[in-house]
Amino acid sequence: MNQLEMLTNSELQEHYSTLSHNYEKFQAQKLKLDMSRGKPCPAQLDLSTGLIDCLSQSDYKALDGTDCRNYGGLDGIPEAKELFAWILEARPQDIIIGGNSSLVLMHDLIARAMLHGLPGSEMPWGKLEKVKFLCPSPGYDRHFAICEYFGIEMITIDYQEDGPNMAQVEQLVAADSSIKGIWCVPKYSNPTGITYSDAVVKRLATMSTKATDFRIFWDNAYAVHHLTSTPDRLLNILETCNNAGHPDRVFLFSSTSKISLAGSGIAILASSETNITWLKKQMMFQTIGPDKLNQLRHVRFFRNQSGIEDHMRKQAAIITPKFNVVLEILESKLGGKNLASWSKPQGGYFISLNTLPGCAQKVVSRASAAGVVLTTFPSLAELKLAMELVALCVELVSAEQEVAKRNL
Amino acid sequence: MNQLEMLTNSELQEHYSTLSHNYEKFQAQKLKLDMSRGKPCPAQLDLSTGLIDCLSQSDYKALDGTDCRNYGGLDGIPEAKELFAWILEARPQDIIIGGNSSLVLMHDLIARAMLHGLPGSEMPWGKLEKVKFLCPSPGYDRHFAICEYFGIEMITIDYQEDGPNMAQVEQLVAADSSIKGIWCVPKYSNPTGITYSDAVVKRLATMSTKATDFRIFWDNAYAVHHLTSTPDRLLNILETCNNAGHPDRVFLFSSTSKISLAGSGIAILASSETNITWLKKQMMFQTIGPDKLNQLRHVRFFRNQSGIEDHMRKQAAIITPKFNVVLEILESKLGGKNLASWSKPQGGYFISLNTLPGCAQKVVSRASAAGVVLTTFPSLAELKLAMELVALCVELVSAEQEVAKRNL
Repeated sequence: MNQLEMLTNSELQEHYSTLSHNYEKFQAQKLKLDMSRGKPCPAQLDLSTGLIDCLSQSDYKALDGTDCRNYGGLDGIPEAKELFAWILEARPQDIIIGGNSSLVLMHDLIARAMLHGLPGSEMPWGKLEKVKFLCPSPGYDRHFAICEYFGIEMITIDYQEDGPNMAQVEQLVAADSSIKGIWCVPKYSNPTGITYSDAVVKRLATMSTKATDFRIFWDNAYAVHHLTSTPDRLLNILETCNNAGHPDRVFLFSSTSKISLAGSGIAILASSETNITWLKKQMMFQTIGPDKLNQLRHVRFFRNQSGIEDHMRKQAAIITPKFNVVLEILESKLGGKNLASWSKPQGGYFISLNTLPGCAQKVVSRASAAGVVLTTFPSLAELKLAMELVALCVELVSAEQEVAKRNL
Repeated sequence: MNQLEMLTNSELQEHYSTLSHNYEKFQAQKLKLDMSRGKPCPAQLDLSTGLIDCLSQSDYKALDGTDCRNYGGLDGIPEAKELFAWILEARPQDIIIGGNSSLVLMHDLIARAMLHGLPGSEMPWGKLEKVKFLCPSPGYDRHFAICEYFGIEMITIDYQEDGPNMAQVEQLVAADSSIKGIWCVPKYSNPTGITYSDAVVKRLATMSTKATDFRIFWDNAYAVHHLTSTPDRLLNILETCNNAGHPDRVFLFSSTSKISLAGSGIAILASSETNITWLKKQMMFQTIGPDKLNQLRHVRFFRNQSGIEDHMRKQAAIITPKFNVVLEILESKLGGKNLASWSKPQGGYFISLNTLPGCAQKVVSRASAAGVVLTTFPSLAELKLAMELVALCVELVSAEQEVAKRNL
């Protein structure tokens, strides 16, 4: 039973009237807060501003002598592969360094699968009557947009506390050869904040798939983006797939977009030797190689793994207070009322807020009508105000629904 | 009649023997010169090394206030569009700035055509039984590799002094709806060095094509790469297509790969409003935008059009002596003998050497057997040696052929 259901009719009406009044007061403030996108805030970017001038005019050579100013180097300079491979817990030889966006690596990989097929494909996916992807939901909208763009049918998979509903996944992939892939954000998931359990990773790695060219698209975007001193641990899926006899099943992606500079970072991809060899051959037709000077900048600026870890602690020092504000307001305004539940992630960029059934869309509309578009980098003060409004909208819409239910 | 045909049999045998002896002397030097790729030399890259440190930690904002460190900006920052549009003689609003490689822009555009079709397409090219491209030959090997990669049939078009044989082109495109495009390197062409005449540009713009979605892929890679004070002029094809009632016919490409830093440059694409609008919508599924800090670097370093023009004069001061060495040796060793002809381009990166029929492949083999793989940035001294060997190989192979012809 939630708080509202315990009220008498007149109590409910009075409560609703108070909430409406409070909402009107918010409206009168004419707020204009657009927080609809996960963009790092200036203070976060400032942490990496040293990247801009860390190279000198005479510092352009890679360890192996490569002149990073010139053409060449399809898969990255050795020291950048060395530095970034640990993010995906892969060996340097198992990774490819791309440009400034892991989204490009994902998009292009699926374009290649459509036009040429992957290792193990009987034919290019584009020649098949139907291609389907499993989409644990809620998930990253840009993953789903790629599916839509390529005409790939999306099958929604429910989330459980420790990842996608694996019984559902296993049943589907075993039965249908047109299911070619699954999108996963396995750590501090976008947007639920959860991290896949070892059991889920193992089941993904070992399950039988009817498609011979099924792939897990493992977007580990928040691999090192911890917010607490008790970070989540994620099982190494590349190793687990390999041990399960499915070495080529997974493509892993990550980037420094939310480590260094969002627009001028480094994207990485890891996979099996077969997949990497195949991919390099494909990439040769597309490019002479990514920007090596930007790789060298990242190597000079971060130096080594502990350089990145130190840096991520500074990031956490900026982000954690924002998470805390959100969690504190949710707790103080909505705690114990059974009107909403929310996630308390150990890292990443997202807190998931779940309302009573039927209320979510209305809460977003009400918040928007009062001037708050729910994530561009809010300041703490803005965030506090916005979250107070959101909490109020949850209460208001829930009360509205309860009023309607009782035909008052 | 060539020099060899005028010799008596014994004169020819003696001449051949001398050439063979000279070739052996080259072999004895055990040269190892790989000049098989058009890579800028270190001195050329040094001209742009100021790009590496021209931004400071506080200099990351574009004119419109965009924080270039952050996400966003699919098509380039305004001042970069302003600076680079003139290279393609387009308006800033008609261009898209890409990453570090125009090859990526070309490859991806054809991938999009295969999977989604272009504006004017009845269906995606990949759904057609056959797609064909016209390939003026000799041409850029990576253009042809893209065709091969996507299963596009290549139809060879002869080069004339002022561009592709337009009678051939017109006849083919008028008759065959599966001909979807033509590759053009219209200025200081790779590898012939020629520039298309106004007449050729006009005929390309006005010709009737059976395909409703025929496109000219106008790779103007050497647009501002002049080597003399009498640079070639190329007619503005975007304007000419527009005036001819075919505004959407052409996609123009260029890059700063051989202006600034080969591996860390800026690629650009220009086209009609319809094509650009369509392309941006497609790109939204692939990327959140290119590296804007690198665009800002280029703006700070070059400042304006005359900054780029000054810079290109410095480039020419490095490259022209190399062209001159090649031309001098060709003239001194092969001039007046009618064994070979060669181009004397006003810009670009290429001199084309044509041998007697049947000799070209053998000349390359002979040069290679003596240790010279014919372009990585040779020094002047290396270049002189290599060209002397090449000239000798032309004479040797020609003489060999003449000897064989006479059954000596």
